[in-house]
Amino acid sequence: MFETLEVGKHIKSSDFDQLEQPLREQLLKAQLELAARDYPVIIVVAGPDGAGKGSLIQQLNEWMDPRWIETNTFWEHSDEEESRPFFWRFWRRLPARGQIGIFLGSWYTQPAQAAVSGELEPAEFSLRCKEIESFEQMLTEDGAVIVKLWLHISHESQKLRLQEASPHRLATQRGSDLSYELQGTYQRTLEVCEQLILATDSAHSPWQLIEAEDRHYRDITAGQLLLQAMRSRSERDPGQATAHAEPANLPVTGQPTVLDSVDLTQRLSRTRYKDRLDTLQDRLQDLGWRAYLEKRSVVALFEGWDAAGKGSAIRRVTRAIDPRLFRLVQIAAPTDEERAHHYLWRFWRQLQRDGRCTFFDRSWYGRVLVERVEGFASPAQWRRAYSEINQFEEQLADHGVIVMKFWLHISPEEQERRFRLREQTPHKQHKLTEDDWRNRDRWHDYEIAVDQMVSHTSTRKAPWTLVSGDDKRYARVQILETFCKTIEEALETA
Amino acid sequence: MFETLEVGKHIKSSDFDQLEQPLREQLLKAQLELAARDYPVIIVVAGPDGAGKGSLIQQLNEWMDPRWIETNTFWEHSDEEESRPFFWRFWRRLPARGQIGIFLGSWYTQPAQAAVSGELEPAEFSLRCKEIESFEQMLTEDGAVIVKLWLHISHESQKLRLQEASPHRLATQRGSDLSYELQGTYQRTLEVCEQLILATDSAHSPWQLIEAEDRHYRDITAGQLLLQAMRSRSERDPGQATAHAEPANLPVTGQPTVLDSVDLTQRLSRTRYKDRLDTLQDRLQDLGWRAYLEKRSVVALFEGWDAAGKGSAIRRVTRAIDPRLFRLVQIAAPTDEERAHHYLWRFWRQLQRDGRCTFFDRSWYGRVLVERVEGFASPAQWRRAYSEINQFEEQLADHGVIVMKFWLHISPEEQERRFRLREQTPHKQHKLTEDDWRNRDRWHDYEIAVDQMVSHTSTRKAPWTLVSGDDKRYARVQILETFCKTIEEALETA
Repeated sequence: MFETLEVGKHIKSSDFDQLEQPLREQLLKAQLELAARDYPVIIVVAGPDGAGKGSLIQQLNEWMDPRWIETNTFWEHSDEEESRPFFWRFWRRLPARGQIGIFLGSWYTQPAQAAVSGELEPAEFSLRCKEIESFEQMLTEDGAVIVKLWLHISHESQKLRLQEASPHRLATQRGSDLSYELQGTYQRTLEVCEQLILATDSAHSPWQLIEAEDRHYRDITAGQLLLQAMRSRSERDPGQATAHAEPANLPVTGQPTVLDSVDLTQRLSRTRYKDRLDTLQDRLQDLGWRAYLEKRSVVALFEGWDAAGKGSAIRRVTRAIDPRLFRLVQIAAPTDEERAHHYLWRFWRQLQRDGRCTFFDRSWYGRVLVERVEGFASPAQWRRAYSEINQFEEQLADHGVIVMKFWLHISPEEQERRFRLREQTPHKQHKLTEDDWRNRDRWHDYEIAVDQMVSHTSTRKAPWTLVSGDDKRYARVQILETFCKTIEEALETA
Repeated sequence: MFETLEVGKHIKSSDFDQLEQPLREQLLKAQLELAARDYPVIIVVAGPDGAGKGSLIQQLNEWMDPRWIETNTFWEHSDEEESRPFFWRFWRRLPARGQIGIFLGSWYTQPAQAAVSGELEPAEFSLRCKEIESFEQMLTEDGAVIVKLWLHISHESQKLRLQEASPHRLATQRGSDLSYELQGTYQRTLEVCEQLILATDSAHSPWQLIEAEDRHYRDITAGQLLLQAMRSRSERDPGQATAHAEPANLPVTGQPTVLDSVDLTQRLSRTRYKDRLDTLQDRLQDLGWRAYLEKRSVVALFEGWDAAGKGSAIRRVTRAIDPRLFRLVQIAAPTDEERAHHYLWRFWRQLQRDGRCTFFDRSWYGRVLVERVEGFASPAQWRRAYSEINQFEEQLADHGVIVMKFWLHISPEEQERRFRLREQTPHKQHKLTEDDWRNRDRWHDYEIAVDQMVSHTSTRKAPWTLVSGDDKRYARVQILETFCKTIEEALETA
């Protein structure tokens, strides 16, 4: 999840100055309007040490009127707090209606620390997360706006920053709410934080994941998200106490996305390709049977740009697996019967028994891709789909299913080349429609949708693989390699 | 929880015939209208063996058009089901939009059985309950109406019915979804079921608890609840995808309530009273200090009819406890500051430290009593308050707080007598207002509110004590006895 955020989003100083002034005015205006409203705004700022939580809070206080913002930290617990139920400490700091409360180190801190240290069993930790969700739901049902900002920086940056800061830290010891940098627990901390975010990323109080390498990008994005949440709440019909249309990440335009991290220059020669293909398909054939014997099933889905080569890549996989062991499901427009159910129903019904493979050519991710971009799903619907999908895939993984998700990426130039080729090739002309050309105009919208989809749904239990697809041979081999490696690892650890 | 349902609600045959015809017509009409709607209705029927789940379902099928109702049972699991994630079996049976699906033995059955048998650890069981809540929330967010009916019968009735049924059962073995009657697990089963209901009694899909001793009452009430849920959904603005205004229990008028189970003829002579009072107060004084030393705090609240003697009863308690150890909180109209927060905030802030007592003269139950009856809280607000309150009290109990809740009950005649006495006694006249007389007109509404409050919130961790208050001396002694007994037990089991 977090590694998909490391794409280098940033804002130049000169741009920052231009963006800052209007944002500041709008935030101040929203804050003034809030004073007359009958609900509070609760801002949770979380993330690793060194991500700049403190300086973001300083910025927010500078942009708005600090007299009506209360910042709460929970570094050390007083004995007053320890001698009452856990949530008492937060209840007494909750902002009143019309006010803003910022929580740095919040109800998330203690459960996360206890899970990292092993004090909390996995089931207990999940339960604590669910309690947090109930707590937040209660507050939003009462009208509160909850904005949860997760600031992420890479491990490398963190080390640098904490070193940089260390002389300062020695001089003046600073508080820390989540000892992310603790020697040797970095990976474990990431795991716990991912679980935390997945379990509490609800429709009523969604997590906003922000790449925080660049402080300009971090602050502007956080400010815009806060503004959008406050506005969308104030526009909402007061009767609609629990509308779910919280905004998703607001992209500052022109930013790199997770797709930019895919190296599209990768190539594979024809001979090398043949060789690899044979080896990998043999290996996969064997693995298909081994998985069958060990009753482990596989669910693999394929998404990607038009003409990215999904069909031909899938064929390279299915050829390697005994047809008795898999079912390939093509997802096109839903049938009448499917339309009459929850959108996940059509996928649940396709699941094969233990030991079999189910491949999806397009999938449930249509909800947050085409349905989002074309407006078939409302913002509330596609936003809550992230957690619905995560829950669905978690149920699969917990049952023992091996889950793989592929996004076939190509450059817009390569796509155009392939479209032209299709135009000129009689037996391929049927594969090209007006829609395909039209979709190209929405390339940028899809990029944003893919970026957010990957950062919200690339989980340890069901990670995304971004496939470098400008060279079809390379793409096919990358997919087959991922298949073999993933299944082998799953069978070994079982 | 369940024992508070055993009050003898019933409907005479002749009344049933009168009630049945219009109900049937309305249900059929609602079902026809549903066919054109874009959401399904999901009915979960649960409860112990012998409560008549099967015969209720037969009745519903008879009242409505069975061609558009699908009944699903999950007695034994097929290997098709076992070899897929747990929820697959339910997904494939979910009704399509416009249709009704009845689930007898549902997603609740397996977790409950596994918890009773001890296969599931407490934390895992809680987690399973939370997963169920997420599943139901996803369906209701998609528009579904979920009606969950819990049929309760007493242990005695159950034994009788299962004996009665046994020759038949031998002839034709019947399916059973929850082996409630298993020798020796009755108490454990009740505990698990209470936990299950508390954890999944959400605003979007609330549990309806029905006393099922009398089949006429059971069927009419279930039918009315179903009708009300379908109607309230169809009247809802389609944009409001997640309105929470599910109806609470619909009372068939003139039924006995839990208050009728209080024996108001109890009396205590003056000498016996003095004697008991002295002994109990001594015991309580000692217990107050013992609780302090063991850092166990006490939260006790007092609710009751006007003039039921709350004030004087509380004084008998506080006199026995060192003033340094308790705080008495009078709940009147909230302050401005309190009004500016969630309604539970004003109670959280009053909690004393470990080892101290907090007494509430009126409490958070105002939400589901006066605020409900007077219309200060919307149906959605007071309905969801049951689970908010249960979660609050559970947090107290889990922290080690000893929770006691008293309802001081008197007859309307006794109340009138006391009002008249106040009118005539100069130094008591200030205690009687116009409101007091006015509230008497709403006696019946309050009775229903109390009945539902007690059945939804009398939990193992925080049970209600219904105090027989027509004789003040008896009431005070009953309260002091409960105090001593509860604290002693809590200190012993710690």
